[in-house]
Amino acid sequence: MATIFSRIVAGEIPCYKVAEDEQFFAFLDINPLVKGHTLVIPKREVDYIFDLKDEELAAMHVFAKKVALAIGKAFPCKKVGMAVLGLEVPHAHIHLIPMQSEKDMLFSNPKLQLSAEEFAEVAEAIRNAF
Amino acid sequence: MATIFSRIVAGEIPCYKVAEDEQFFAFLDINPLVKGHTLVIPKREVDYIFDLKDEELAAMHVFAKKVALAIGKAFPCKKVGMAVLGLEVPHAHIHLIPMQSEKDMLFSNPKLQLSAEEFAEVAEAIRNAF
Repeated sequence: MATIFSRIVAGEIPCYKVAEDEQFFAFLDINPLVKGHTLVIPKREVDYIFDLKDEELAAMHVFAKKVALAIGKAFPCKKVGMAVLGLEVPHAHIHLIPMQSEKDMLFSNPKLQLSAEEFAEVAEAIRNAF
Repeated sequence: MATIFSRIVAGEIPCYKVAEDEQFFAFLDINPLVKGHTLVIPKREVDYIFDLKDEELAAMHVFAKKVALAIGKAFPCKKVGMAVLGLEVPHAHIHLIPMQSEKDMLFSNPKLQLSAEEFAEVAEAIRNAF
């Protein structure tokens, strides 16, 4: 069965898209730690990020860097942090999180409640900076 | 002034080394969240990971993947997680953390207190799996 992320890529489940290329897809985390919290995934369904072939892993991080730099332009921050946990959704994904402090990376923090309009604005701001 | 990580690479400050190649260096985090918590750094001193050139960033992640797979062999876990925060030491570093649960990635958790012998054993186990 397709993962929820594959269904997002296929357009079967809506998302706030930030960027895509042939291999990768970036969209807003629907349970964001901070405004601008974005997920980067390979379109090819692979569970564990370290099961990606070297070239694919390398290309994914180069793509994620472009997304991270756009996030940093759209949401000024000290740095954009990165995390891969991946025990919940079995489809490799990189979290990109604009940080004002390292505490912004604590996944135990309460998630932001944003309206559809706010999510749309966040995604547009990152897309425009991409 | 050289960062503490550059001084580790230079051998001026001791560490529990896990692996290295021409460009990158891996050693145990001295304040580990769990046994096997490892840092991967570029030998070239760059503060923000997204300031690395594409080729360097790509190569760093391919190197980190090798280290992560070795950590997973030495310390059986669900997955090896990855995080880049980087507001404390101004030298890009990837945290690699063997996870039994996503909570193992919470940087607010108390750090493990390991003896020098235990650190040496952990590093050796990962080196042997590398």
